[in-house]
Parts: sequence; structure tokens; C-alpha cells
Amino acid sequence: MSTIYNFSAGPAVLPKEVLQQARDEMLDWHGSGMSVMEMSHRGKEFMSIAEKTENDLRELADIPQNYKILFLQGGASSQFAMVPMNLLRGKTTADYINTGQWSTKAIEEAGRYCTVNVAASSQDKHFTYIPPQNEWRLNPQAAYVHYTSNETIGGVEFHWIPDTDVPLVADMSSDILSRPLDVTRYGLIYAGAQKNLGPAGLTLVIVREDLLGEPLPATPTLYDYQIHAQNDSMYNTPPTYAMYITGLVFAWLKKQGGLAAMETINNTKANLLYDYLDSTDFYHCPVARTDRSRMNIPFTLKNSTLDVEFLKQAQQNGLLQLKGHRSVGGMRASIYNAMPLEGVAKLVAFMKEFASRHA
Amino acid sequence: MSTIYNFSAGPAVLPKEVLQQARDEMLDWHGSGMSVMEMSHRGKEFMSIAEKTENDLRELADIPQNYKILFLQGGASSQFAMVPMNLLRGKTTADYINTGQWSTKAIEEAGRYCTVNVAASSQDKHFTYIPPQNEWRLNPQAAYVHYTSNETIGGVEFHWIPDTDVPLVADMSSDILSRPLDVTRYGLIYAGAQKNLGPAGLTLVIVREDLLGEPLPATPTLYDYQIHAQNDSMYNTPPTYAMYITGLVFAWLKKQGGLAAMETINNTKANLLYDYLDSTDFYHCPVARTDRSRMNIPFTLKNSTLDVEFLKQAQQNGLLQLKGHRSVGGMRASIYNAMPLEGVAKLVAFMKEFASRHA
Repeated sequence: MSTIYNFSAGPAVLPKEVLQQARDEMLDWHGSGMSVMEMSHRGKEFMSIAEKTENDLRELADIPQNYKILFLQGGASSQFAMVPMNLLRGKTTADYINTGQWSTKAIEEAGRYCTVNVAASSQDKHFTYIPPQNEWRLNPQAAYVHYTSNETIGGVEFHWIPDTDVPLVADMSSDILSRPLDVTRYGLIYAGAQKNLGPAGLTLVIVREDLLGEPLPATPTLYDYQIHAQNDSMYNTPPTYAMYITGLVFAWLKKQGGLAAMETINNTKANLLYDYLDSTDFYHCPVARTDRSRMNIPFTLKNSTLDVEFLKQAQQNGLLQLKGHRSVGGMRASIYNAMPLEGVAKLVAFMKEFASRHA
Repeated sequence: MSTIYNFSAGPAVLPKEVLQQARDEMLDWHGSGMSVMEMSHRGKEFMSIAEKTENDLRELADIPQNYKILFLQGGASSQFAMVPMNLLRGKTTADYINTGQWSTKAIEEAGRYCTVNVAASSQDKHFTYIPPQNEWRLNPQAAYVHYTSNETIGGVEFHWIPDTDVPLVADMSSDILSRPLDVTRYGLIYAGAQKNLGPAGLTLVIVREDLLGEPLPATPTLYDYQIHAQNDSMYNTPPTYAMYITGLVFAWLKKQGGLAAMETINNTKANLLYDYLDSTDFYHCPVARTDRSRMNIPFTLKNSTLDVEFLKQAQQNGLLQLKGHRSVGGMRASIYNAMPLEGVAKLVAFMKEFASRHA
């Protein structure tokens, strides 16, 4: 095969070194004679993997000891219910910020368990910006404030942390570990793995432990954070292989220099593409400059009749999965941690060349 | 490494050919340039994997078209809540058969959503037998009857299918696809993958479609079978890599000759070990002969002070994970589909030799 670059929004590209190590260890992990997939989750081999995975994450993101790290199943979408089921804690209302399709889904599900106050929304401008905090109408009775730090579809991202009196909850599925993280500002952070962390099927939750233990009465046992926290994510069998791969990604992130180093490279990659988009009339990015995502970069061709040809030629050049989400059309380049700079450079070079041929 | 045999109760041994193929395809699936882990679940490559996986299962287990096959997350333990949340359908009680620790857990969780009638239980004899159906006290008002076809800890297995007027629900986590399956006798079958199907993190549900669409009001969206059925298990991102490996296992099962062939080999393996256990006083199997599991075979040493030495020498001989569950002690050999006959033969040879040296 020739080198390809995979711009999928998720499941997404993983570091090649991680996949190579997974390949080499597939039939025999560290001389155990077993694949990681075959290991009892309570055996000493897998316990050592789980412990290193958690410790590496704690170190990478500087997570204090009063925060529990949970490795769950279900996807970020399961958190849309788990958050209100666990964090209402006797209250009946919660604040949500609506910045796109993922926020909207979180709001819909939360509305089944409490009164949702949409404290701010950018729906008026098709989710192309982040409402500034001075325009938010927070409810003092809210149990928590929920926001989506990066919207994969609209391509907007918070470049600041909201300031709230009640616990702050963030869906960081698509930008977690892409920059340094001040966990202490949050009550709870959650993320599906399949963008910046590892394979689909693993959901990461980081939660301040004093918020646990007061779920709604009908909460299924496996939707109770406290149960998982008390059992080190092994109340039932966790998604062991996905945890292993995610652990390899954490080790890879440490080797890259940690989250500060990732922020630098992620900014470089995003700026390379945005600078070109802003320099030409052939393409257009609809997102407000101050709120642009460094992870998911949507853009359109001025002449949308060229869309099909653009995607076809991109594919022929090894640039895959650039089609925009069906709800917004156009193109989208997802450039998570594991997308190398060369991939973005090759994309920009292709875009320039395509523009010059079709100007 | 020298050959080892892994008798773990789950996650458990996988077919070596499956792991070899997964290794060979890790960085480049079928010339796509991508790992399966990196594929969008909505892209044509993964869609083809998902389709083949479902079709192979439908063929293997002869699953009629009016049954939906769902590939979920959460583990079998999540089904302990999902079953009552979805199948009560306006009723307020359900029948459960208690044959061991997994049945007990299912009963505890169901009790949070309805009145559970334990129609039969073998707790009186430490879960060492299956109560015959003529002793069951079924409730005509029950929404469904739930049983656990194989108990991994106690080592009892149903060798017959209960006959019920209301939908029959089975937790088949530890013996699914180990023998032919008459799906038409069931309303719903569920199984965690990590014993006979694939890696932990995938939960299989086979459900008759007329039972869907009437969940309890507070059911989280992702606990509603209908949502998954209507979206071909892609309402949210499924555990794609676990589905791929499970698909490879299905293809391997077809190559072995399907479920009838697996039953023959599984009976041969189990008989080899039971025949030896019954021929000696050195070891003892506590389970009633008619109800013995072909998957999980618990046994004790008459002289339990030799347990530690037995496990140590077994390990030195490449026979791993034979320690019994902490709740029952002794030993346990889990011999699912992927355990080769040679593994059981080597175990029996070792047991004989150990007995002769310590008689």
C-alpha cells in the first residue's frame, strides 16, 4: 500500500507506532503466551496493563487524587443519560450550553431526567460560533453546567474554560488530551475513545469523587458511577483490549512530550490549514475565527458542483474520509493527535493544486 | 514462547488463526491502508465487515428474519437491567430461575424494575444442579421467563430448553454457539462476547422484533433495544474492533463445520475431563452428572492442601488460569470453543501425573 492519510471524524487514525506494537504483541504479550484479548481482567498481566494505563493518564493530564478515572463502555452517548442520573443529586434542573449537534443530543437526553435550562445557544448562526460567557443565562438552582468542548460536526471549539459556581461538566470526546487540561476546574469530564484516545468501545470518565453516590432511583447499576469507582472499573468485565490500545496511546503521548507538546503540534497543523483557507476564495470555512476547532475543520468549495471531483481526486491522492457530515455537506478534515503534520501538509498541497486547476 | 493453554473463564482463549489474521491485518485491512480500528463505522469498509459479521451469525445459528441481531456495549451485566426495562411491556412481574451467581445477579437487578418471582432455585444444594421444569412454579402473569443457560462459576448447564407460555429469555454468555441453537424457542438471547465470541466490550443480543418498542419511561436511550434495532446497531458508534474480531471468530466457526461440529468437539473435550474426574478419588467434581457444564468444569482436590502446588506445577506445564472462582475455591477448567482438544488432553495427562506423584 502507498501511504494514506485518514481524515475520518471517528473512529479515526491511530499512531502507527501504536498499531505496530499491537501487531507485534497480538499473539504473545510480553512473553505471557497470551494475546491481551485472552487475558482474564483479574489476572496479574491485565491488572498491570490497567494500572499503567490509569497512571499514565493521571500523569499526562495531571489528574488529582480526588478525581476518579473510570474506563467504561457505552460511548459518550451513554453519558448523556449517566450525567443527569448521577449528578442531579436531589436537584431538578441543569444548565446546558448548545453549540452544535452533540450538545443538542446531550440536551435531549437530559430533558428526560430533569428540566434543562439552555443557558446559551449558537443555533441562531448554524452553530458557527461559541456564545461568550457574559451572554449566558445560568440558573443558580442548576445541579451542574454542561458543555461540549469541541463539536466535531460544526467545527467549533472552546478555547477557554467556563467559570461556574456549580460543578462544570464537559463532553471532551473530540479534543481531550489535545492540549493541557486543568482538571480541577471540572466536576466531570467524559470522552468516547475513538477520536483522540483509542478504539471505539471505551468511554473515559474523570469525576470528582465527592459528586458520586447519589444516583436517581431507577438508575441501572452499570449507569452508577459510584459502582464503577468503587470497583476500579472492574465491577463487570471492562473492554480490556480497548483499554490496552488506549494505554499504548497514552505511552505514545508521553513520548511525544506530553500535552503541552501536543498543543504546539496541533496548533501548527490547524494553522497550516486555516491559513490557507483564509488566503483563498476557492474554499471557505464558515466558523468564527476565535472559535475554530483545531480538531475538525469544515470547509466548502465556492463551487459546490466540484465537490464530487474534489473527493475523488483526494482519494486518488491517498487523502481519505474528507466528506463533510451529511447534515452540513462540504468537506471536513479531522486532524486529531494521531494525524501527522505531513498529512495536513499533503492535504493543503492537494487543495492548492486542485484550486489552481479549477480556478 | 512454548505452547500454553489458557483455561481462563473469560476473557478467554481465542482461536489462534483469528489472532494471526488480526495481526496480519492490523495496519492494513484488505489494502485499505487502514487498521479496522481506524475506520469510520459508516464507511464502506467497516459496513462490509459489519454486514458479513451479522450474516455469518445468522447463518451459523439459523436465526430467522423476524429476530434482530444487535451488537451492543456494556457487557451481559447491562442486560440484567435492559431485559426488564424493555420486556415488561406493561406487566409488573417476571419469572427467574436461579441456578447460580449469574442468575442471582440478574434477579437482583430485575428486582429494581419489577416483582421477581423466583420460580425455581438450586441454591439449596449450592447451585450444583438444574431444577427440573416440573418443579418450577411459573407465574401466569409474568412478562417473561429468564434463565442462565450455563453458570461459569458453579459449572451447571441446561441441556434442555425450558417450555414457557410467555417469552423465554436466556443469558447465554458462556455457552452460546457451543452447540446448535433453536432461536425460535426464545424471545431474547443475550451474551457477553468474552467467552465464546470475541473480545470483552461487545454484547450480543438476539431478539424477536415484536417484543420491541415498549420500554419503561425512564429507560436511557442506549438501553432501548428498539433504538439499536432501528439503526442496525449504529445509533452511536459500535465497538467496531470487537465486532471485527467476533466476525473472524464466526468465520472460523463456519470453517470448523458450524455449530453441530462444535457440539461434537465440545462434548469430546468435556467427556475427556469428566471421565477422568469420575474415575479417580484424587479429584472431585461436585456437579450433578445430568447438569454438568461442557464449558466450565469445576473440580477439587481431595487434599486441598495440595491446591497451591497443583496450580504451581500446572503453570510450569503451560496450563494457565486453573484456579477456581474465589467464591467456591478449588480448580476450574474453562474449555470454550477455542480451547483445542490437545489442551484438555494435556490437562488430563498432567492431572493424572500429579495424582500419581501425590497419591
